[in-house]
Amino acid sequence: MNFTIIKKDGAVRAGTIETENGSIHTPAFMPVGTNATVKALGPDELKQAGAEIILSNTYHLYLRPGHELIRNLGGLHRFMGWNRPVLTDSGGFQVYSLARLRKLSDEGVEFQSHIDGSTHFMTPELAIDIQAALGSDIFMAFDECPPWPATREEVQRAVKRTALWALRCKEKKKCMPLAEKSALFGIVQGGSYEDLRRESLEGLLEMDFEGYAVGGVSVGEPKEEMWKTMDLMGPLLPASKPRYLMGIGDLKDCMQAVQAGFDMFDCVMPTRNARNGTIFTSGGRISIKRTEFKEDPSPLDANCECYTCRNFSRGYLRHLFLSREILSMRLNTIHNIHFYLEFFRQMRTAIMEGRFPEFRNRWERVEW
Amino acid sequence: MNFTIIKKDGAVRAGTIETENGSIHTPAFMPVGTNATVKALGPDELKQAGAEIILSNTYHLYLRPGHELIRNLGGLHRFMGWNRPVLTDSGGFQVYSLARLRKLSDEGVEFQSHIDGSTHFMTPELAIDIQAALGSDIFMAFDECPPWPATREEVQRAVKRTALWALRCKEKKKCMPLAEKSALFGIVQGGSYEDLRRESLEGLLEMDFEGYAVGGVSVGEPKEEMWKTMDLMGPLLPASKPRYLMGIGDLKDCMQAVQAGFDMFDCVMPTRNARNGTIFTSGGRISIKRTEFKEDPSPLDANCECYTCRNFSRGYLRHLFLSREILSMRLNTIHNIHFYLEFFRQMRTAIMEGRFPEFRNRWERVEW
Repeated sequence: MNFTIIKKDGAVRAGTIETENGSIHTPAFMPVGTNATVKALGPDELKQAGAEIILSNTYHLYLRPGHELIRNLGGLHRFMGWNRPVLTDSGGFQVYSLARLRKLSDEGVEFQSHIDGSTHFMTPELAIDIQAALGSDIFMAFDECPPWPATREEVQRAVKRTALWALRCKEKKKCMPLAEKSALFGIVQGGSYEDLRRESLEGLLEMDFEGYAVGGVSVGEPKEEMWKTMDLMGPLLPASKPRYLMGIGDLKDCMQAVQAGFDMFDCVMPTRNARNGTIFTSGGRISIKRTEFKEDPSPLDANCECYTCRNFSRGYLRHLFLSREILSMRLNTIHNIHFYLEFFRQMRTAIMEGRFPEFRNRWERVEW
Repeated sequence: MNFTIIKKDGAVRAGTIETENGSIHTPAFMPVGTNATVKALGPDELKQAGAEIILSNTYHLYLRPGHELIRNLGGLHRFMGWNRPVLTDSGGFQVYSLARLRKLSDEGVEFQSHIDGSTHFMTPELAIDIQAALGSDIFMAFDECPPWPATREEVQRAVKRTALWALRCKEKKKCMPLAEKSALFGIVQGGSYEDLRRESLEGLLEMDFEGYAVGGVSVGEPKEEMWKTMDLMGPLLPASKPRYLMGIGDLKDCMQAVQAGFDMFDCVMPTRNARNGTIFTSGGRISIKRTEFKEDPSPLDANCECYTCRNFSRGYLRHLFLSREILSMRLNTIHNIHFYLEFFRQMRTAIMEGRFPEFRNRWERVEW
């Protein structure tokens, strides 16, 4: 993996990540494809929307259909028909948020599947094994992501364990020649404790990862704490490596993070909202079910060039939503993903042209 | 509307129906788009599968979103982004099968909406009004479709009322200059009573419809009775007009109906089965959830050229189905609709080349 910064404006930067499966222009938004599909979309639609990378989930794919199965079917790219880069979350976050925890030790985590209750034992080594089987372009280290709120002691223990596990991930990956071309990112924990965040990062820096992510944000803490964390961490993360703020997708938060020097983002917000009928437009967020759209012949967003906006009216999309038609979820998702990716493209252009402050100012005024 | 028979082989025929919105090659299968969408598919996918006409539902669109709304948004074609022919069922069947009936008289039917329980009064005139508002290419007359089983007296009354209503539909449509280019088909009722079927047809023939449909089949009666009805009616329906067997979609039944001289078919079978994971292939029907497909890298059907078969493995499709992903319903539906339409294209080619018996014989041996 290669990361090149093409333009810098204070902390704000635009760059390119090159992987075996293609380039990613940063700042980049990664649509979430948990179960080897970005919900409601096929790979062609993702490409049409301009997606350059998607995120998929180690935890989910390990449980179903199983990473060995995906390996046997040629890896995740081939399995899902997506030939561009894939970043895989390590499962750390999901083990704590979705599964029923059984036992937690320095060795790993025993948990029960959220699908069928079966018992599993996840270790840093297994997390790397799974991501190698999937053939991911960017692996994430297996981390301990404590819930919010957590005591200082809990967070401190998680920071230590995350460092220990990051090292084991690094060692494990070294022994996998087939995964050589994939990158491995470390994840900084530390909750809302500034000193623990610094401690967590320091531990990871020694291990020299190809990219650094900030995890344990947007886990329930007040927005102010999240902003504090991103403003703190942005400048501390190595400038020459991609900086990834995990799970953040509110567009104003993304702009603030870009301001702080972050490069990569992922969030289910555009896809989940689409399925619930909440649409992002250049004028703000709208709910497609509103009565005022009943006979509205205009597209979701007059400024949008997505397939949905080129072909269908708000009146039709409202009807599909109220009729709970599958096509509703797809057309709304096409639009929201296109809107998000277009937002990031325009943000990048603004950075390249030295007018990120105007860009941010224009979009800060919109109600999301 | 123009109907031309291009090839005849005994009772079997291949032809072309020309409408304002394009041509339909017969024998034709019409995918069902109840709520102004063929479930899980967009208009582009229908075209890619080769659909030349779809069926939509007067009853459903009248209740939601309302025919006036669709009229105001430019008609059904524009509303749903489909610029090829549309046939609209009259609502007769749905009023009896879906709604809660309140009162039935020669004037019309009072019923309660299956959506919100609201009370409505459907008449032949309203059914035509709705279809005109939708801008359908082929209107169906409003009929009384008695349930199965029904007494001879009930069926006889339905036959008489269907004739009365057919005439009122015809008269109503005459007074609508904007609907002039649309065709109107009459519907033969009469249940399993041969003499009542004959009586029903005779009444309709006097009114000279542009096409004739056989309704009240596949409403719960034994298959043998349905076959008897189609074998009886095929030769009796006017040879120069399209003959439409309503709601039939079992492929062997379709072949038998083509043998009896029918030209048009509709059924939810390919779409509904797709959503339930039941797939039609040249080798027969398969359930995608079967364990044997777990690591199967092959497409649903090696002989199929649909988008799904060109891009995805059985292993992936099984995973999507078990994960209840929306993409599962879409990819399965793309395949099943493509399979059905390809089946009909090949059947038509066989007729054109004088080898329908071989075609039928080959497919009769497959387990559906």
